[in-house]
Amino acid sequence: MSLINRQIHLVSRPQGEATVDNFQLVELPVPALESLAEGQVVVRHHFLSLDPYMRGRMNDSRSYADPQPLHAVMLGGTVGEVLHSKHPKFAPGDAVLGMGGWQEYSVVDANQRGALHKLDTTHIPMSAYLGAVGMPGVTAWYGLVKIIAPKAGETVVVSAASGAVGGVVGQLAKVRGCRVVGIAGGADKCRYVVDELGFDACVDYKAHTDPKSLYQALKAVTPQGVDGYFENVGGAILDAVMLRMNAFSRMAMCGMIAGYDGQPTPMSNPALILINRMKVEGFIVSEHPEVWADATQELGTLVATGRLKFKESVAQGIATAPEAFLGLLKGKNFGKQLVKLI
Amino acid sequence: MSLINRQIHLVSRPQGEATVDNFQLVELPVPALESLAEGQVVVRHHFLSLDPYMRGRMNDSRSYADPQPLHAVMLGGTVGEVLHSKHPKFAPGDAVLGMGGWQEYSVVDANQRGALHKLDTTHIPMSAYLGAVGMPGVTAWYGLVKIIAPKAGETVVVSAASGAVGGVVGQLAKVRGCRVVGIAGGADKCRYVVDELGFDACVDYKAHTDPKSLYQALKAVTPQGVDGYFENVGGAILDAVMLRMNAFSRMAMCGMIAGYDGQPTPMSNPALILINRMKVEGFIVSEHPEVWADATQELGTLVATGRLKFKESVAQGIATAPEAFLGLLKGKNFGKQLVKLI
Repeated sequence: MSLINRQIHLVSRPQGEATVDNFQLVELPVPALESLAEGQVVVRHHFLSLDPYMRGRMNDSRSYADPQPLHAVMLGGTVGEVLHSKHPKFAPGDAVLGMGGWQEYSVVDANQRGALHKLDTTHIPMSAYLGAVGMPGVTAWYGLVKIIAPKAGETVVVSAASGAVGGVVGQLAKVRGCRVVGIAGGADKCRYVVDELGFDACVDYKAHTDPKSLYQALKAVTPQGVDGYFENVGGAILDAVMLRMNAFSRMAMCGMIAGYDGQPTPMSNPALILINRMKVEGFIVSEHPEVWADATQELGTLVATGRLKFKESVAQGIATAPEAFLGLLKGKNFGKQLVKLI
Repeated sequence: MSLINRQIHLVSRPQGEATVDNFQLVELPVPALESLAEGQVVVRHHFLSLDPYMRGRMNDSRSYADPQPLHAVMLGGTVGEVLHSKHPKFAPGDAVLGMGGWQEYSVVDANQRGALHKLDTTHIPMSAYLGAVGMPGVTAWYGLVKIIAPKAGETVVVSAASGAVGGVVGQLAKVRGCRVVGIAGGADKCRYVVDELGFDACVDYKAHTDPKSLYQALKAVTPQGVDGYFENVGGAILDAVMLRMNAFSRMAMCGMIAGYDGQPTPMSNPALILINRMKVEGFIVSEHPEVWADATQELGTLVATGRLKFKESVAQGIATAPEAFLGLLKGKNFGKQLVKLI
């Protein structure tokens, strides 16, 4: 009897807010070794990564990436171990990183460049390759180091500060001698950001529902203004931070969660970009493979030596992926959102 | 009997829209040669420059420049000739550029660095030093060359295209082999931009009062999308252009006329900065003195050889300056707005 591979397909596009009805669980047999072509590898996934960018792909609109096809496995990063291999460089038991998608097993053409990466799991836990030492970590590194390029003594603010990207941004900025202020939703997340991750301060945006209150809270913890902003959410938080930006400040625009569902959220006062001679730059980390080596070297060293901390929010089993993903979009996760598949 | 110097003072700050009541005409005697200190020069102004940035200074708010003081001469660029001099480098009759302000004469400490520049008026008319070969021209040059940095074949869009800055932006982009599209208010301005300045196309925003119509008009003349946008106005025009921006496009943010009066105008969909991995940069030309020599060299050569064209809108006499300025803010000028003072 063959193994069963359970997958999550996208079966409809969201009208406004995404719902569990946009997804469907599908079961297929896992191919046996004999049925593989030369170069193919079957990977048994241990963890699936859930990330905000996936929401953008669910829409059928002009964006940086092609839309996720309907009636196909949702795309997503995975770590796992090789089960079967017809590729000379991969053997059963090897720990690997890939884009296996929302499923328990994937069949990968390992000859395709970059499709599968072997992992060192001696010093770094496998799941970290989906977080602090993976795409979210490198995203944090690129936006902070290449766009914000902070100098010691400058003030850096990051939204979604307890998230997989935000937590790394702040810790990397602390390593560089900055004053670091997070913005997160809820007292628990803010405590974590300050007490565990070592940020200088954190503003709980849920405790400040009107713009003036949010601005005042932010002002209190950024007495010297803001020199660098790592933007993960947009909306009212973006507007508040804009009002604290200094002359010649830089904003790395990485995510706009607030706008993924439904209508775009405006920026209230774009003239501040001119008034403060700001540089605002959007980026997608996958377009900058040239930084991957430098970034993962720093991130891996910091994780292996315990100087870069992170938290994971782990859902159990592939069937829970849609619900966990919708929760992520609403900020219900706490740290890097994963689905454990074994 | 001494000469009379007529000045325009700012006497109150605008509440919302600026009005002529914010200004007052004041008369003072012009100092005689004997009363000057060593190093001082009296300049008789031929032309005063009126520029949108002046509106920002009329407010008492946090901005890149200190507010214009109340009950003092309005600041502004001037060209004229030396009347009296107690500085060895300046003699009566010399043509000079300075920040003489809204008045007929100014007393300048010529020892102050950059306070007074001698001009070559053999090949270039004096007034051009307030326009195409002056601050507006260098503004155009900086935003285009240093921020947009267009490649031949790319599409560059500029708003306020018939204005002192916009007209130069487009012509410099044509010199660089770009497809150039202007946005201007009215059929006359659009005809001028295409027929006289050599733009490839021009969209008349006054003929497209709803956002969809404006977008469609812009789309029709930017079939390859937009790679560089030189932003002079903000508001609905900014929103429409944002929807045509290509991946890795650049926006030089130079002015936001639409927002100078009253409330800030929002940017409807800032997530496009992320989606298209745009770079948006605000700048003020006076902070980049290092480009002045390169910029005026190119601009001066192009003007002297008739390859850079410009238009002037000339009000007569200092008393007309407030009204001419308010008209400029409403787009009533056609080309560089000057006040002739002789």
